[in-house]
Amino acid sequence: MKEYSLLSAEERKAEYARTRAEYEAVRAKGLDLDMSRGKPGKEQLDLVSGIFQRMLTPEEYLSDGEDVRNYGELAGLPAARRLFADLLDCKPEQVFVGGNASLQLMYDTITKAYSHGLLHSPRPWHQEGMLRWLCPVPGYDRHFRITADYGFEMIQIPMTPDGPDMDAVEEAVRDPSVKGIWCVPKYSNPDGIIYSEETIRRLAFLSPAAPDFTIMWDNAYCIHEFEGDYVPFPDMLSLCAEYGNPDMVIEFASTSKITLPGAGVSCFACSEANMAYLKRLLSIQAISFDKVNQQRHVLYLKDKAHTLELMQKHAAILAPKFHCVLEMLDREIAPLGIAQWQKPKGGYFISVNAMPGTARRTLKLCQDAGVTMTPAGATFPYGLDPHNSNIRVAPTYPSLEELSQAAEIFCLCLRLSALEKLGV
Amino acid sequence: MKEYSLLSAEERKAEYARTRAEYEAVRAKGLDLDMSRGKPGKEQLDLVSGIFQRMLTPEEYLSDGEDVRNYGELAGLPAARRLFADLLDCKPEQVFVGGNASLQLMYDTITKAYSHGLLHSPRPWHQEGMLRWLCPVPGYDRHFRITADYGFEMIQIPMTPDGPDMDAVEEAVRDPSVKGIWCVPKYSNPDGIIYSEETIRRLAFLSPAAPDFTIMWDNAYCIHEFEGDYVPFPDMLSLCAEYGNPDMVIEFASTSKITLPGAGVSCFACSEANMAYLKRLLSIQAISFDKVNQQRHVLYLKDKAHTLELMQKHAAILAPKFHCVLEMLDREIAPLGIAQWQKPKGGYFISVNAMPGTARRTLKLCQDAGVTMTPAGATFPYGLDPHNSNIRVAPTYPSLEELSQAAEIFCLCLRLSALEKLGV
Repeated sequence: MKEYSLLSAEERKAEYARTRAEYEAVRAKGLDLDMSRGKPGKEQLDLVSGIFQRMLTPEEYLSDGEDVRNYGELAGLPAARRLFADLLDCKPEQVFVGGNASLQLMYDTITKAYSHGLLHSPRPWHQEGMLRWLCPVPGYDRHFRITADYGFEMIQIPMTPDGPDMDAVEEAVRDPSVKGIWCVPKYSNPDGIIYSEETIRRLAFLSPAAPDFTIMWDNAYCIHEFEGDYVPFPDMLSLCAEYGNPDMVIEFASTSKITLPGAGVSCFACSEANMAYLKRLLSIQAISFDKVNQQRHVLYLKDKAHTLELMQKHAAILAPKFHCVLEMLDREIAPLGIAQWQKPKGGYFISVNAMPGTARRTLKLCQDAGVTMTPAGATFPYGLDPHNSNIRVAPTYPSLEELSQAAEIFCLCLRLSALEKLGV
Repeated sequence: MKEYSLLSAEERKAEYARTRAEYEAVRAKGLDLDMSRGKPGKEQLDLVSGIFQRMLTPEEYLSDGEDVRNYGELAGLPAARRLFADLLDCKPEQVFVGGNASLQLMYDTITKAYSHGLLHSPRPWHQEGMLRWLCPVPGYDRHFRITADYGFEMIQIPMTPDGPDMDAVEEAVRDPSVKGIWCVPKYSNPDGIIYSEETIRRLAFLSPAAPDFTIMWDNAYCIHEFEGDYVPFPDMLSLCAEYGNPDMVIEFASTSKITLPGAGVSCFACSEANMAYLKRLLSIQAISFDKVNQQRHVLYLKDKAHTLELMQKHAAILAPKFHCVLEMLDREIAPLGIAQWQKPKGGYFISVNAMPGTARRTLKLCQDAGVTMTPAGATFPYGLDPHNSNIRVAPTYPSLEELSQAAEIFCLCLRLSALEKLGV
């Protein structure tokens, strides 16, 4: 197969006709496949059903002497705080264990900043004339929707293979209206990149003009390798403290992709000073989070070593799915020179950069053939990808058989849209 | 025993000496008793341990064909929405089933009004020059803390045996800066009063100056009779709609005192128009709440009839506790004419109005004798009871034996503080 850019107009026409015929054939099957969201598949849910079978005995109603079934312990069961501290390599007293979703904790943090301000805020953010926020792109649509919802002007920071472009970040934080940055530092959403040590150190070493500049450190995939061993990762809380910025970072994590999406346990981790400040605000809204579910997780996951064993079982399910898509892209698309992609070893996504100007069309073709994908542009603030190129592929939810069909269709659509763009 | 106000100075001195001696005798025991919060006792928690034993089978991972273990259904499992609609006598599509605490949903509603405004808000509330809120007193301290946290000027509305003084409410809502009212309409916290039908109709019929005036209808004790049969209660959503105010009320409820405090399921209920508006805002902060726990509750509680049977079992535990305190008050305090109290048939509290000016002193004496009570003033906005009189007694958490001791001490303290006030 030749690179499409080298094809003559004649050859392109022929290739388009062949590809279109293949596409129409699969379209006729009336498939209904979903590669849109980072959802674990059924096999993964079944994998952790032990958390249902292995239920609390009366002795286990107590945790550190406290009845997990009653009100109390706003910051979470001490044992749950220890578990997350173990996973994140921070201290238990830096951990607040919340409800079923880290997204809620992140939303809540921005909300509190908006209504009340954060620890070092001169005033609540709603009283600031202008609010700006740094968004590494491509990034996570749900992050961007939060800052969009609060009226931030979102500034795009290009992602590099080492993480956000730190020259751009260092320049941007000189503006006092820039209040923070979204980061998924390990297996970034969607690129699957691990921030380099240098990137992380430069982030921890930032000197932002805003005294309440906040790094929203969404460590969603902290132990989520699907290929190879667990990759140790620096504790951002220690690093920020080391560089004199102890209160500049708030870290988030959850068990949504360890146990159950939507029925797991989430946490945030931060400096002790931030913890005292945030706990005071949180005490207005909650008496306590679901400590029974926290206890289930403590009993089921035990500690980091045991949790990593479970992650290897998830990996055994996930790796073939990622390989299926990556191998199909390598085989069907790489020779054509019409798209680039990362080859992640963890996380939940494959980020494909289609030929500029073709992402939207590609996904329209996918949809028409029964394959739902994350909408084009979703990985950019306001849903607007300036190059109309980035496509987030979420290979985790479909079965391997479905995935194989969906990936095949996706490749056909990449080809059709590229040929259309080149002219047919 | 004579009324204290009729005692001579001599008699008061003698009575004080006797009472003080009794008090010092119990104080010497070094007790540690808690009547401070509306927490279910251990016996109640054990009562519902079936929710742990009766776990999900693989067939039960599905609810209405949907896997409860994965993301989705922001507004909650349809079956959970039906269950709460059954309990509250409203429609399933009016119900949003959330996480573990209705307090969070209430906080979240005020937060969203503050940051974004409600359905009929001309602007977000943080842009209003002045915010006022109606607080029936005595009331629930955690309600008042929410509106205090957002800077509302809180206007006290006296409670009557029929609910809030509606003349005062109707007058107050003519001020456009008055944005809402806290209500616990059934077994109000702390009075244990059921709002009369007339009060409820007048509330539903209000014509507030603020287009976004909101009745925060915290139906926390909707099925929480501890004496007698379930008392049917009007559906406030229908009533408000009937009077042309369909969007004026948001109702809240939870299973915190049906299954487990802090590990139950909460909901709000509102008009379909409010639901559409709030769901849009909620979709930014959450993908879904814990549907596994919702499913546990659906399977365990089944429907209203079955849930009411469970509530009768709670009642069998609670009634003796309430009677213990009420009988002690009747016997020890009523003849002295130094306090008044309601005799609730449901809810979680007994509201005692001590001799004006003595609440704080009474509770200091209790504390010194090892009995923790809700702080004086907690039932008023800003924690300030203008008469220093109201005391919230929470008899549910201690065992009956502990409660009997605690109530005895409480009565001694009421007597001592009254005598001190009268002069000894």
